[in-house]
Amino acid sequence: MSAAATRRPDTSRARSWWGWGYADAHPDDAECAAMGALLPGSLNRPLPIPRIADLSIAEPAVTPPSSLVHLVTADPQVRAAHAMGKAYRDVIRALRGRPGRIPDLVAYPTGDREVADLLDWAGEHNVAVIPFGGGSSVVGGVEYRGDAHRAVLSLDLTSMNRVLEIDIASRSARIQAGALGPVMEGQLRPHGLTLRHFPQSFEFSTLGGWLATRAGGHYATVHTHIDDFVQSLRVITPAGAGTSWRLPASGAGPSPDRLFLGSEGALGIITAAWMRLQERPRHKASVSVAFSDFHRALGAVRVIAQSDLAPANCRLLDPGEALLSGASRNGSTILVLGFESATSPVDDRLASAVDLARSHGGRCQTHTVDRNAPADLAVSAWRSAFLRMPYLRDGLARMGAIVETFETAATWDKIPALVDDVRTEVSAAALKATGHPATVNCRLTHLYPDGAAPYFTVAAAGRPGDEIEIWDHIKAVADEVLHRHRATITHHHAVGRDHRPGYDLQRPKPFALALHAAKDALDPHRILNPGVLLD
Amino acid sequence: MSAAATRRPDTSRARSWWGWGYADAHPDDAECAAMGALLPGSLNRPLPIPRIADLSIAEPAVTPPSSLVHLVTADPQVRAAHAMGKAYRDVIRALRGRPGRIPDLVAYPTGDREVADLLDWAGEHNVAVIPFGGGSSVVGGVEYRGDAHRAVLSLDLTSMNRVLEIDIASRSARIQAGALGPVMEGQLRPHGLTLRHFPQSFEFSTLGGWLATRAGGHYATVHTHIDDFVQSLRVITPAGAGTSWRLPASGAGPSPDRLFLGSEGALGIITAAWMRLQERPRHKASVSVAFSDFHRALGAVRVIAQSDLAPANCRLLDPGEALLSGASRNGSTILVLGFESATSPVDDRLASAVDLARSHGGRCQTHTVDRNAPADLAVSAWRSAFLRMPYLRDGLARMGAIVETFETAATWDKIPALVDDVRTEVSAAALKATGHPATVNCRLTHLYPDGAAPYFTVAAAGRPGDEIEIWDHIKAVADEVLHRHRATITHHHAVGRDHRPGYDLQRPKPFALALHAAKDALDPHRILNPGVLLD
Repeated sequence: MSAAATRRPDTSRARSWWGWGYADAHPDDAECAAMGALLPGSLNRPLPIPRIADLSIAEPAVTPPSSLVHLVTADPQVRAAHAMGKAYRDVIRALRGRPGRIPDLVAYPTGDREVADLLDWAGEHNVAVIPFGGGSSVVGGVEYRGDAHRAVLSLDLTSMNRVLEIDIASRSARIQAGALGPVMEGQLRPHGLTLRHFPQSFEFSTLGGWLATRAGGHYATVHTHIDDFVQSLRVITPAGAGTSWRLPASGAGPSPDRLFLGSEGALGIITAAWMRLQERPRHKASVSVAFSDFHRALGAVRVIAQSDLAPANCRLLDPGEALLSGASRNGSTILVLGFESATSPVDDRLASAVDLARSHGGRCQTHTVDRNAPADLAVSAWRSAFLRMPYLRDGLARMGAIVETFETAATWDKIPALVDDVRTEVSAAALKATGHPATVNCRLTHLYPDGAAPYFTVAAAGRPGDEIEIWDHIKAVADEVLHRHRATITHHHAVGRDHRPGYDLQRPKPFALALHAAKDALDPHRILNPGVLLD
Repeated sequence: MSAAATRRPDTSRARSWWGWGYADAHPDDAECAAMGALLPGSLNRPLPIPRIADLSIAEPAVTPPSSLVHLVTADPQVRAAHAMGKAYRDVIRALRGRPGRIPDLVAYPTGDREVADLLDWAGEHNVAVIPFGGGSSVVGGVEYRGDAHRAVLSLDLTSMNRVLEIDIASRSARIQAGALGPVMEGQLRPHGLTLRHFPQSFEFSTLGGWLATRAGGHYATVHTHIDDFVQSLRVITPAGAGTSWRLPASGAGPSPDRLFLGSEGALGIITAAWMRLQERPRHKASVSVAFSDFHRALGAVRVIAQSDLAPANCRLLDPGEALLSGASRNGSTILVLGFESATSPVDDRLASAVDLARSHGGRCQTHTVDRNAPADLAVSAWRSAFLRMPYLRDGLARMGAIVETFETAATWDKIPALVDDVRTEVSAAALKATGHPATVNCRLTHLYPDGAAPYFTVAAAGRPGDEIEIWDHIKAVADEVLHRHRATITHHHAVGRDHRPGYDLQRPKPFALALHAAKDALDPHRILNPGVLLD
């Protein structure tokens, strides 16, 4: 089948060039000020929203050939909106009028041939190519640093956003990499299918971005990463293109797809993928469970993760995180537990999981088993806070605050001490650096039989003008704690440029040698996303 | 903890040097003759069991240095037993007195340092190194072909067979790669844990072999391959050694482990791994379901695979396979269905799966829900036939027959035509090549929401002296059918040397470039398992 074309990204609602998501969803000045008042040491009034017109944007250093010129724009508005991702560092740089290097050009290819032609041209002219999907990187994944290239091209794939084929029997679809979450799901819905990959950035990130960064998604257990839903990848590199066969599984050599999943645009451009889909769930049930002790709650989620109950949602919010999201106001640790199935009722599984939680001191809150019933209040509070959080971060950034997140994963034997040490040492570092007490909250976002993925949120008042240096210092302290516990530098945000020091320490030598060799072979002119994963 | 040492492989029961498994488990001459009588065109009496003493085995072309000499043997018996794997081709070559190249030396390292030293020495002296675990390769994975090296060293890892550490909280263990299945499980059992990886070769293959070949294991759905149970790998390459961090999951760059899983000894030697373990199941239930139509049965297993029931066993035997294994004598297609859990009863899941099978025309046979009850007759018949099959193959090989298997995987849209075409075209090729009718049976061994893994068994009378040429021709016809349907050259037997033509066609160009580059970087002297995966 050939799905309806949606050739251009939806522009009906303006995206913020400097902050998260939609421009009209940002808190206004009064709301920013109200939030800032809760954080001692904040500014009295918000920093103004930055304007592209105030930036001095140089003329492009290169001109594309006539054969490609129709794909490329040098519009300063577009270029500025492609200069950076959406990390706290990026927001501050924009607020301070010093965004990352503005790309010389932005290209919108509409097909593989055009991507290959753009790579050929870039290779010949020493133009760095930064692949760009939704631009929601929070790790410096979509910007250019350094000066080793003559110019910088942001390769925006969002014009390649169609579901090209659907195979109902195998419940899979071939999807172009530039499809934003809702654009893709909108094309799958009429077929009764869904990818069910819903990262926090769902509206503002693309399939290709998820694949290139091994994004964590909807499911808290079992199939937690996009990797597991990949059937075949189409990859275009400067040294040639290829498509892996559509296979449900294979033992023929090392997985070809797994080398490109997580390659963050440094080895090639993923232009399409056959993805494994699912029927929409018909049975859902969710509940929240309160614990008076965070460490006992850790025991509860461990036994749930080691059972075969496979909850779709099993997120543990520490008291600070529960308070911030409105899931609890009394200092409880909250477990948000949800089950779903397209084939069979899930009430028994939910009940079994609740039993396990109770045996570790959990107290069950409202229990919802009907998908149409109003959800558990704590569950729904958490859900809406989850989606609103990045906007609030930007509002606090305008108040001069330092608000950022980082996430990791480790085996269960390390989790309790890891979480405690991050809280203690990062709070101390933030206090020392800012002179103001900081909050460091933690939630577990994904669970495994052998470990879990903690996600930390740091909030502290900054010092005007020094926010980035302070954050970089706090992050270095956090990285040191992660490294000491051998916890990964990232479970699902990717490495980008910001996590490079931690990544380099973590990567085993034989794989480092192989990855460098692969880079040399596939990207001989070193134009692909320079500085990401590799120097 | 430090588990009890089991430093040397169990030698209490003699292994066959020329055929599968234990020497005393092979059918005797009378049984061979009885089997042969069922296959028109077979020999009248079995070929004699070959003797190592009849081989002319040259003196080793190299001498190890004094620092390594204690690890190395030049015993002709040991060398002959390391010359080949256990494919049908290997058995015939042994029966005909023309085994593959006999390695000059066999080394039994006891630790990483010794492995590294052996690689250093081999690299300096142009000695090919063939990693050897249980030696059960059926794809030419553990032999040397060609003459580009001065000598051949078989690197037998079975002296590195200990469970080194257990982490109960994370339910994982660090295990040396040379542990044979039973040796490993014997050390895990006292801790109430199990890897539950039970390939047909379980007794005669090692953890390292499973990892290097991406072995398919116990589970018919969800976690079908050993890959999913890997937490960390220790890899030693000629260019350096490294260990990936113990992580339940990570999004930090491409998975370092996935490049070595399936590398078949061509990129490095896996010497140990942290593996994810499980509690032993406390709840089990199994049943067999009969279908009068194979294609309707395909529909049944597809809906079961696309449900979230996750059976541990869900193997579909076509009428020939069911007959051969004794699971059915009336021409039915048989579905062997089993569920297991360490945490909760599985009866409901079994009942739901049976309902799905019934809605596709399945007729339920004896239903067993108590793990201590005698199993469903069809289920137990299939299980014992499964383990006995390789021995029978060797007996038939002694009768001059051609008996071999191959396996693949493809998406559901291709499965019905793929199975039909393999049956038709391979039968025709075998008839034409041998002058005798051949049987081509099929079972589905592993199932996925998007596809399945068919496993084929071919049996035909051969022509004395031409068995290998005939089999190679039949296999080439089979490969052509697989390639036409874009079905993988192997789902879990690995590529080795026998599947290279199919693998080379299947491997996408960008990954081929990366793999060659990784080989150059990690194995600059090209000593590691030459000819496997790469030239």
